[in-house]
Amino acid sequence: MSDLVARINPPVRTLMGPGPSDIHPNVLAAMAKPTVGHLDPYYLKVMDELQGMLRQLFRTENAMTFAVSGTGSAGMEATVVNLVEPGDNVVVCVNGVFGKRLADVATRAGGNVTVVEKPWGEVFTADDLKETIAATKPKLVAIVMAETSTGAWQPIEEISELVHNAGAMLLVDAVTSLGGVAVEVDKWNIDAIYSGSQKCLSCPPGLAPVSFSAKAMETIMNRKTPVQSWYLDVSLLANYWGENRVYHHTAPINMSYGLHEAVRLILEEGLDNCFARHLKNHQALAAGLSAIGIEYTAAEGHRLPMLNAVKVPEGIEDTVIRKGLLNQFGIEIGGGLGAFAGKVWRIGLMGYAARQNNVLLFLAALEQLLAAQGYQFDRGASIEDANQVYLAYSHAKTLG
Amino acid sequence: MSDLVARINPPVRTLMGPGPSDIHPNVLAAMAKPTVGHLDPYYLKVMDELQGMLRQLFRTENAMTFAVSGTGSAGMEATVVNLVEPGDNVVVCVNGVFGKRLADVATRAGGNVTVVEKPWGEVFTADDLKETIAATKPKLVAIVMAETSTGAWQPIEEISELVHNAGAMLLVDAVTSLGGVAVEVDKWNIDAIYSGSQKCLSCPPGLAPVSFSAKAMETIMNRKTPVQSWYLDVSLLANYWGENRVYHHTAPINMSYGLHEAVRLILEEGLDNCFARHLKNHQALAAGLSAIGIEYTAAEGHRLPMLNAVKVPEGIEDTVIRKGLLNQFGIEIGGGLGAFAGKVWRIGLMGYAARQNNVLLFLAALEQLLAAQGYQFDRGASIEDANQVYLAYSHAKTLG
Repeated sequence: MSDLVARINPPVRTLMGPGPSDIHPNVLAAMAKPTVGHLDPYYLKVMDELQGMLRQLFRTENAMTFAVSGTGSAGMEATVVNLVEPGDNVVVCVNGVFGKRLADVATRAGGNVTVVEKPWGEVFTADDLKETIAATKPKLVAIVMAETSTGAWQPIEEISELVHNAGAMLLVDAVTSLGGVAVEVDKWNIDAIYSGSQKCLSCPPGLAPVSFSAKAMETIMNRKTPVQSWYLDVSLLANYWGENRVYHHTAPINMSYGLHEAVRLILEEGLDNCFARHLKNHQALAAGLSAIGIEYTAAEGHRLPMLNAVKVPEGIEDTVIRKGLLNQFGIEIGGGLGAFAGKVWRIGLMGYAARQNNVLLFLAALEQLLAAQGYQFDRGASIEDANQVYLAYSHAKTLG
Repeated sequence: MSDLVARINPPVRTLMGPGPSDIHPNVLAAMAKPTVGHLDPYYLKVMDELQGMLRQLFRTENAMTFAVSGTGSAGMEATVVNLVEPGDNVVVCVNGVFGKRLADVATRAGGNVTVVEKPWGEVFTADDLKETIAATKPKLVAIVMAETSTGAWQPIEEISELVHNAGAMLLVDAVTSLGGVAVEVDKWNIDAIYSGSQKCLSCPPGLAPVSFSAKAMETIMNRKTPVQSWYLDVSLLANYWGENRVYHHTAPINMSYGLHEAVRLILEEGLDNCFARHLKNHQALAAGLSAIGIEYTAAEGHRLPMLNAVKVPEGIEDTVIRKGLLNQFGIEIGGGLGAFAGKVWRIGLMGYAARQNNVLLFLAALEQLLAAQGYQFDRGASIEDANQVYLAYSHAKTLG
């Protein structure tokens, strides 16, 4: 008995990294509600409601809208392996870690993958893809809307038109974007899309909201070969998440409770209000960071409000600051991935983390840590500049 | 706003089906603890501890012992797709739903699958497999230790010897057995094994404990083709769950909290005590059922203590009783799957559900519902007979 480990007793963090984000207390409380069976009438109601709310979130009428029983990467794999059969031509847009992962997953699914690359931090225009799509006549084009490794915000509409004019389907990674900025599945004609519970939805990681268009479902139902994954096979999952409610696997009941409450909170706030809140806090953070001379990696106009990827200032050691934030303030931010390792910080303002108190606390903590490292401030007025943004919003509200 | 759904508020159930099982209150409380990042020093400690505890549970020294970020079926898929390459010969033993699923998953992984079948409810002897293994020289033999669809308890040791003498590897489904009866990974020379969090571990569904032997890992590291699933690729997961702790996917933090506490509780009780508790409650339930003339589907000596699959008595409507249990008593038991639909009840005594109060309550409720349906009791003394078992144990304890 003496070698028993201690009970779970985690430190309280302020989660401002690339996800998981801060979790609303209601969501944690929902996670601890009594477990019922996966075919219990109550759970079937929870599934129905969750599907309805996810449709509102994705702004879609797609029947096959549900939560994959795995994390965001399982959602990626679910969309890819259902749509790609061995030998299918696939175009994948790569400008960061997650585009690269998409290409890897599509290749493992037997796809004949052509990668179109852009430098990290940049986004794709339709012109960037025209030639490749004309040359390879793909069945599927895959693109990341919010590249979590770079903070770049990829516009989807123009590319969707190009893709569909070429007779292809469009697959979109919305892991970081969903719930933070508008994601318009029907309006943008997206055929398959996936997200994760732990970003702007502010639920713990473990579920991946996905949606498949009618065209995607028709393609899946008419495959020549079985889907390589039994666990992620949407033709089987359609019977569990569809009207029949036929047992497939044992759904993660309590995770579903958490996601149900997380999405309910967003709809209670109102989707547009929620996007506006993300934008406002991003602007305040950006003003503060700009005041102390910290630059974004993505170009103006393509910066994600919920994922602020900024350059580590010259002469400052990445890990010293991140460890200081964690150990002295309990604040988590993300470091750079891949080509950006050691050079970039990723500051998340996702879901419940996108709030004034987090922005001001983070700026105050960062200033203190930079000062301790001998950083030369031009003005050192990050808080004042951030406050200006909040005051301007507050003033506009009073007038409006 | 008016169309907002209500907050999660599930009914309190007594979960005596094939899983999920009753969840210990400590486990639900752990699920709601503050989320930390997936690379937070605290979470890395949780992972370390969880791996250590899972090794004790599986009774193994296997380095690659961890929890797959998905439900039990994802655990099945993880073990199969890592070990099976296209064209590999695989033998799968099928005597119920989950053996059949294994064959399906192995076929989708490109395996050249030979199925050996036995009637539902029966188990395999080494003799049943000898010819097929000699004829097909498989790379892998897969078998279910506790067939959740039939309640049959499959002995592993003799078959393991046969499999290894033939130069093959052994893959075992321990979804329902782990934590309820002894599972001896090292002693029985099992190469790959998977379980689920929601059976005898009494944690909500969502994680799948797995373990791979050194030989299995060597085989995986020397594959000719990449694992078809990126999400489940153990060669990548080894870097996250291994010493390097390299980011792979965002682990389901709060689910891990729950599993950590669930396994901790079992180790606190002591594994052998935990198995003895399952056996005692099974014997009491069996005595009670026998008293009212209800028969098991599996032969004596091959009945799983945690999953009591019994025949619906002649003239009694399956669903009337199950609905009565749920609606009048809040008790969930399982119906039959596949060939057993409508003919079999599956009464779970798994983990925290394996306790005297559940057994006595269930028998009392069942008697009342059967009586309401005009069932002819020979004696109608299920409670008395169950109590005899408990009294005998209690008496033995006093003497011992």
